[in-house]
Amino acid sequence: MKINKNFLDLEASYLFSTVGRKAREFIAAHPDADVIKLSIGDVTRPLCPAVIDAMHKAVDEMADEKTFRGYPPDYGYDFILDAILQHDYIGRGISLQKDEIFLSDGAKSDCGNIGDIFSVDNTVAICDPVYPVYIDTNIMNGRGKNIIIMPCGEETGFLPELPSDTARVADIIYLCFPNNPTGAVASKAYLKKWVDYANAHHSLILFDSAYEAFITEPDIPRSIYEIEGAKTCAIELRSFSKTAGFTGVRCGYTVVPHDLVFEGTELNALWSRRQSTKFNGVSYITQRAAEAVYSAEGQKQIQENLSYYRENARLIYEGVTAAGFKAFGGKNSPYVWMKIPEGFTSWSFFDELLEKCQVVGTPGSGFGKKGEGYLRLTGFGNRERTLEALERIKKYFASRL
Amino acid sequence: MKINKNFLDLEASYLFSTVGRKAREFIAAHPDADVIKLSIGDVTRPLCPAVIDAMHKAVDEMADEKTFRGYPPDYGYDFILDAILQHDYIGRGISLQKDEIFLSDGAKSDCGNIGDIFSVDNTVAICDPVYPVYIDTNIMNGRGKNIIIMPCGEETGFLPELPSDTARVADIIYLCFPNNPTGAVASKAYLKKWVDYANAHHSLILFDSAYEAFITEPDIPRSIYEIEGAKTCAIELRSFSKTAGFTGVRCGYTVVPHDLVFEGTELNALWSRRQSTKFNGVSYITQRAAEAVYSAEGQKQIQENLSYYRENARLIYEGVTAAGFKAFGGKNSPYVWMKIPEGFTSWSFFDELLEKCQVVGTPGSGFGKKGEGYLRLTGFGNRERTLEALERIKKYFASRL
Repeated sequence: MKINKNFLDLEASYLFSTVGRKAREFIAAHPDADVIKLSIGDVTRPLCPAVIDAMHKAVDEMADEKTFRGYPPDYGYDFILDAILQHDYIGRGISLQKDEIFLSDGAKSDCGNIGDIFSVDNTVAICDPVYPVYIDTNIMNGRGKNIIIMPCGEETGFLPELPSDTARVADIIYLCFPNNPTGAVASKAYLKKWVDYANAHHSLILFDSAYEAFITEPDIPRSIYEIEGAKTCAIELRSFSKTAGFTGVRCGYTVVPHDLVFEGTELNALWSRRQSTKFNGVSYITQRAAEAVYSAEGQKQIQENLSYYRENARLIYEGVTAAGFKAFGGKNSPYVWMKIPEGFTSWSFFDELLEKCQVVGTPGSGFGKKGEGYLRLTGFGNRERTLEALERIKKYFASRL
Repeated sequence: MKINKNFLDLEASYLFSTVGRKAREFIAAHPDADVIKLSIGDVTRPLCPAVIDAMHKAVDEMADEKTFRGYPPDYGYDFILDAILQHDYIGRGISLQKDEIFLSDGAKSDCGNIGDIFSVDNTVAICDPVYPVYIDTNIMNGRGKNIIIMPCGEETGFLPELPSDTARVADIIYLCFPNNPTGAVASKAYLKKWVDYANAHHSLILFDSAYEAFITEPDIPRSIYEIEGAKTCAIELRSFSKTAGFTGVRCGYTVVPHDLVFEGTELNALWSRRQSTKFNGVSYITQRAAEAVYSAEGQKQIQENLSYYRENARLIYEGVTAAGFKAFGGKNSPYVWMKIPEGFTSWSFFDELLEKCQVVGTPGSGFGKKGEGYLRLTGFGNRERTLEALERIKKYFASRL
């Protein structure tokens, strides 16, 4: 039996595991230290009451033979697909069909599994810095040598430029806006360039809009399908994780329009076959929870949590700027991308911040070479702890920068 | 952008979709018919009270900032891994470690996704008849031309024989006992032959024991690790779907022992990397539900449901035998594998049974060529409806066979 040797080309350790280990080691060495984590993009606010009520009700249904539900439909119950379709698309002027939406246990699963339906021979364009899953899943699938890195530095506003090498077309293009880790957002005019490129070259865009709920400015697109022509070139990945605090509940969805036809085959049919063969649907209780997010009360309640995180992000941006750092993001995004002072690397500054302020960030270089010189802070923490962290940063660094 | 062309080699329609469509068409044409489904392997009894209580409690924890849980560990919380380890392995004399167990959203996902960690060049030995997912996932992954079919007919007691072609070693071997669809079970002595073959040829066994909870006879192994030598050659797939009625809750687990070393690499490390990259763990609420299955009350309560299904299977076996059919399974298994009369194909007998008795079965030929001449009936239905179906079968066929 032979193994998939592509796995041997992966980095051994995952970024967030290393960050976690270093924080644990610091705490072990300094048991009295009051460490504040602004590092990992996990939510901390409880689920909203509408979601809690819906889950209790669904649990009770599972206790009664008359209302018990067995295997869910592979792609999601009609009630949740209808809610997604109406609220996230039709209601915003985007026409889609219900069978173009596939419910799943989360965007990370879909983001990895979608690679199953593409040939290993495709070139793959990926931003640097980037969410590591895009890179790693392509290495696993045998596309490690076909990756085209798109640098996203301050000089381009952290946006990737269109590929200039006409000899090497980008077949599959990963885009994530609002961006993780930089917090950068994309305008409609900017995304239109990518859609035009993809349609001209018969390429596919994988658009990750996991952070769309953080957008507050009306002219910033929340869906790639707000861009004319996107339905013939883009798959969209969505998540309830950040929108409704579902990181521990596990639910997301992927949109695969029928208009996506490559080599005479609808990608919708391929994804549908992939999911019905290698997936068995999402927990009924989770699907009812997701449905409740779209109720009138649910919508109001999730906005309270989102406002809380947005305000944290704004405070972090203001706080580190006031301490003398240059920073980006923090608006339409839960992430602040902080430029670190001369003389530090991302990891040495991570250590400095941990030692001097007992604050944990995520080193930018962990997201790619172009992330070197930056640190990511997140707005998902507790307000008082976030303010306390900023006080410490101001106190220590304001006189030194 | 080029598609994965292996998908084009798949059959267009899934067996159970066709069965469902035919049943719906019959009902549309005969609106007064009282159709009874003994076809699909989905449970019908509600979740047991211990599980319901645990889920309500977990939902409440998610409503409170102090007990809220975000991202779960990629491989499962310690509380459920410990429960599995103690109850399903250590308590039965099998020594395993906690990090050899990987919790997931179900055995179907794992069964499909596990293929990611193997080279596409492996040969794959698969039984006929078989759960279609084994075949389809290998076709998708590019191993369609490397499949070695192992016929499992009445002449071998529905058990596959060891490969006799020494020139073509079976690198990966799928075994499922108690078997879906035939209901056949494997003795320790029989499984020992496979373990010895695998160790001698450095092959890997994928052992699907989704139906182990139906075993009532003490000498029939519930885990492949009851067989000496299995830890160096076997991965085990387990599910809460049939054991605890979790088809709509979605939870299973996969065991990958550290002793599985191929080409100098631990499969445990590969699967662990695959899951941490392409999966984000199981819903906290589901994990608490699974934990409750292992409580004293949970164990007692799931046995009540299992006994109900076992008795259904026994009644089906007795009933069709009394009607003059030859049948197999129905013991240590929820499935009865019924031999159909001369002059019928699996599909023409499916139609006959639907038209004459308004009973839906699953045509054996849908599970593979060697399934031709059989029909699968399941014990997962309601008792009264199952008895009614058997009455109709006896009434119509007893005088004709």
